[in-house]
Amino acid sequence: MRMVDLIEKKRNGEELNKSEIQFIIEGYTNGDVPDYQMSAFAMAVFFQDMTHDERVTLTEAMVQSGDQIDLADIQGVKVDKHSTGGVGDTTTLVLAPLVASVGVPVAKMSGRGLGHTGGTIDKLESVPGFHVEISNDDFIKLVNTNKVAVIGQSANLTPADKKLYALRDVTGTVDSIPLIASSIMSKKIAAGADAIVLDVKTGNGAFMKDLDDAKALAEAMVGIGNGVGRNTKAIISDMSQPLGFAVGNALEVKEAIDTLKGEGPKDLHELCLTLGSHMVMLAGKAQDQTEARNMLEETMRNGKALETFKTFLASQGGDASVVDEPSKLPTAQYTIDVQAKHDGYVSEIIADKIGIAAMNLGAGRATKESKIDLAVGLVLRKKVGDAVKAGEPLVTIHSNTNNVDDVMAQVHEAYKVVDEKVGAPTLIYTEIH
Amino acid sequence: MRMVDLIEKKRNGEELNKSEIQFIIEGYTNGDVPDYQMSAFAMAVFFQDMTHDERVTLTEAMVQSGDQIDLADIQGVKVDKHSTGGVGDTTTLVLAPLVASVGVPVAKMSGRGLGHTGGTIDKLESVPGFHVEISNDDFIKLVNTNKVAVIGQSANLTPADKKLYALRDVTGTVDSIPLIASSIMSKKIAAGADAIVLDVKTGNGAFMKDLDDAKALAEAMVGIGNGVGRNTKAIISDMSQPLGFAVGNALEVKEAIDTLKGEGPKDLHELCLTLGSHMVMLAGKAQDQTEARNMLEETMRNGKALETFKTFLASQGGDASVVDEPSKLPTAQYTIDVQAKHDGYVSEIIADKIGIAAMNLGAGRATKESKIDLAVGLVLRKKVGDAVKAGEPLVTIHSNTNNVDDVMAQVHEAYKVVDEKVGAPTLIYTEIH
Repeated sequence: MRMVDLIEKKRNGEELNKSEIQFIIEGYTNGDVPDYQMSAFAMAVFFQDMTHDERVTLTEAMVQSGDQIDLADIQGVKVDKHSTGGVGDTTTLVLAPLVASVGVPVAKMSGRGLGHTGGTIDKLESVPGFHVEISNDDFIKLVNTNKVAVIGQSANLTPADKKLYALRDVTGTVDSIPLIASSIMSKKIAAGADAIVLDVKTGNGAFMKDLDDAKALAEAMVGIGNGVGRNTKAIISDMSQPLGFAVGNALEVKEAIDTLKGEGPKDLHELCLTLGSHMVMLAGKAQDQTEARNMLEETMRNGKALETFKTFLASQGGDASVVDEPSKLPTAQYTIDVQAKHDGYVSEIIADKIGIAAMNLGAGRATKESKIDLAVGLVLRKKVGDAVKAGEPLVTIHSNTNNVDDVMAQVHEAYKVVDEKVGAPTLIYTEIH
Repeated sequence: MRMVDLIEKKRNGEELNKSEIQFIIEGYTNGDVPDYQMSAFAMAVFFQDMTHDERVTLTEAMVQSGDQIDLADIQGVKVDKHSTGGVGDTTTLVLAPLVASVGVPVAKMSGRGLGHTGGTIDKLESVPGFHVEISNDDFIKLVNTNKVAVIGQSANLTPADKKLYALRDVTGTVDSIPLIASSIMSKKIAAGADAIVLDVKTGNGAFMKDLDDAKALAEAMVGIGNGVGRNTKAIISDMSQPLGFAVGNALEVKEAIDTLKGEGPKDLHELCLTLGSHMVMLAGKAQDQTEARNMLEETMRNGKALETFKTFLASQGGDASVVDEPSKLPTAQYTIDVQAKHDGYVSEIIADKIGIAAMNLGAGRATKESKIDLAVGLVLRKKVGDAVKAGEPLVTIHSNTNNVDDVMAQVHEAYKVVDEKVGAPTLIYTEIH
């Protein structure tokens, strides 16, 4: 088999079979297929797409390129959740203890953030003492005992995907549904989940700006997941503005605590209940959506969700007293309001600009080497659809410097305030089964 | 400027401007743009094509990537001819002395053959003593004195094209009209021609099997040539069977001698007069096609074309007496006829198979390192449309071994003999201005 023939086959719109796709991915992983052939192949895929069978085989080949986490020793159906990324997305912090508290095992492998979207591990590390450096054995024991644990990403998870992702980034081949879908799904599958709930974001703050593109990606991922025998569901949710109020590590932990008490921002609360009830259903812990949702609302009300969060933090070295005394979390030196310039209604909050403003404060990493400041970030005081009067705060900046002119300017650029009344955006567009 | 942005621009179907294309080609030549980005770009070009302006700019950038031959010291309009390649294509050997004999300066830069298509230098070297290792100054002096000289290819001619061609070969991006056209034209332009006549082949023995593809390539090359200010014309000619009778180095020199006397195979004779009269016209030596053709027929008749060939050979160290005594050319030990198996008409001669049979005899190079045997090859005795009786020779094999079973089998595979009468194929399909 020669790689050049396989490139031409895909280029000509023909379907590659299983052994051909395995040849490509194995060859690329071990270096037999050079980058310059792989990038031409990726561009051919961009133009010619991949069939369902090709996508499934590609994902399986990437899973097999490295370590596969074995979660067999964990009792129950392990359900993972994945979000395609956005600004201020605190759902993982809430969902992990929330669904664990009703008996769904959550064995979460997480990463750090890069750019203006935060990483779950960074957020959790704002709890003093919390760490993810635990052995695989301890990880499994913790999930069996507490139903929830978080571990750092294995170095050798889907190396083919890591290499291909870096190549796509510099060769104009990122925006390809089959390549995005197989990249995400290969990592989830290698991480050992039995079932997967996907939160595909759409809107100006999402990778998929357009609802139709988001649907196509969701359908591709659900197709792959079910194709490899992992029960997979997706919802399409709004990222036309940041989710919840908080954008920043410790600020989001505080927001997660509020949400676990049932006192979180309306959109974050609703999204967690929707995603959470899908997870509960996939885990076989409820008969239907209504029952699942009732279970989650009850565990918020009776304090069990919050209790599970404390147990989880303590089990990985964290100071669980922050849950009752959030002032123990890292706190910024200055809080500065960004005030509305005139009366009106918020019609738009460009999520990317808010994310970048928070990164510029130190909440995110501009490069892999950047050190982040866990205390800083932004808290939105007005969201799309809210009425606002001149002088009222739009956003509160949490900063360790009082020179925040640039950040204030960025917040003003992100917010659009208009005269006519505007409705709140739809939060959840659709579900894909 | 970032290469990844330019790849995406082309991928999205937008037109690249001059500075962007120069950035790509300069960067690729000096190594700043890596192979893996260039191959993704080439695949994007495969799918999105290039506009006329992009093709011209790409060609100019490749010309500027290396040496440009300065032919200013040669008097007159220097007209070059290029063929897209075929089997038994003896036209260059005929055309160089033919048009020189009517005063058109021919300053030819030529290469060696690879695979089953022969190189002009290999063919000429079957004349004892002939060589192309001459200085640039001598080359120019010879053209001014004799109107014709041949020199080997400069090592640093269009290095961007050399590098890109090798990359395309292994990344499934060969079959792209703008990339093929700019590759060919950049070499011709860097070699210094004022005007260019293109012989684009079509049929089973050509790179462009299909007439429409051949037309598209011809139009692309004529567009580029005229776009960079070199008067360029193309004809589309048949390569559904080998051209002329001889396939092999010394055999083709002998055939060229016959053709210069006006005694060549009908198709080769006609094609040389057509291409030659275009060259004469472009050089401004005749008012119209008829006048040009008459001049060439006259110079064949009166012996001046043959005389020019002798002078040319002698001026570069060759033994010109071979022209009058072709038996002094390298001669194979054995001549073996391949006989027709039954009566009928020749309906097809698959040119590629004939070329490969000749290469297997030693007439061509399987790899760059192969040594070729100048004496061997095939002489076709029947062409498409000819009637044939069982036992009559289809082909005469000239070989230095008498074990030619494989070659005979290949010849039989190449020839198709049918019961119904078949017409000879069209030789010249169309002209592109």
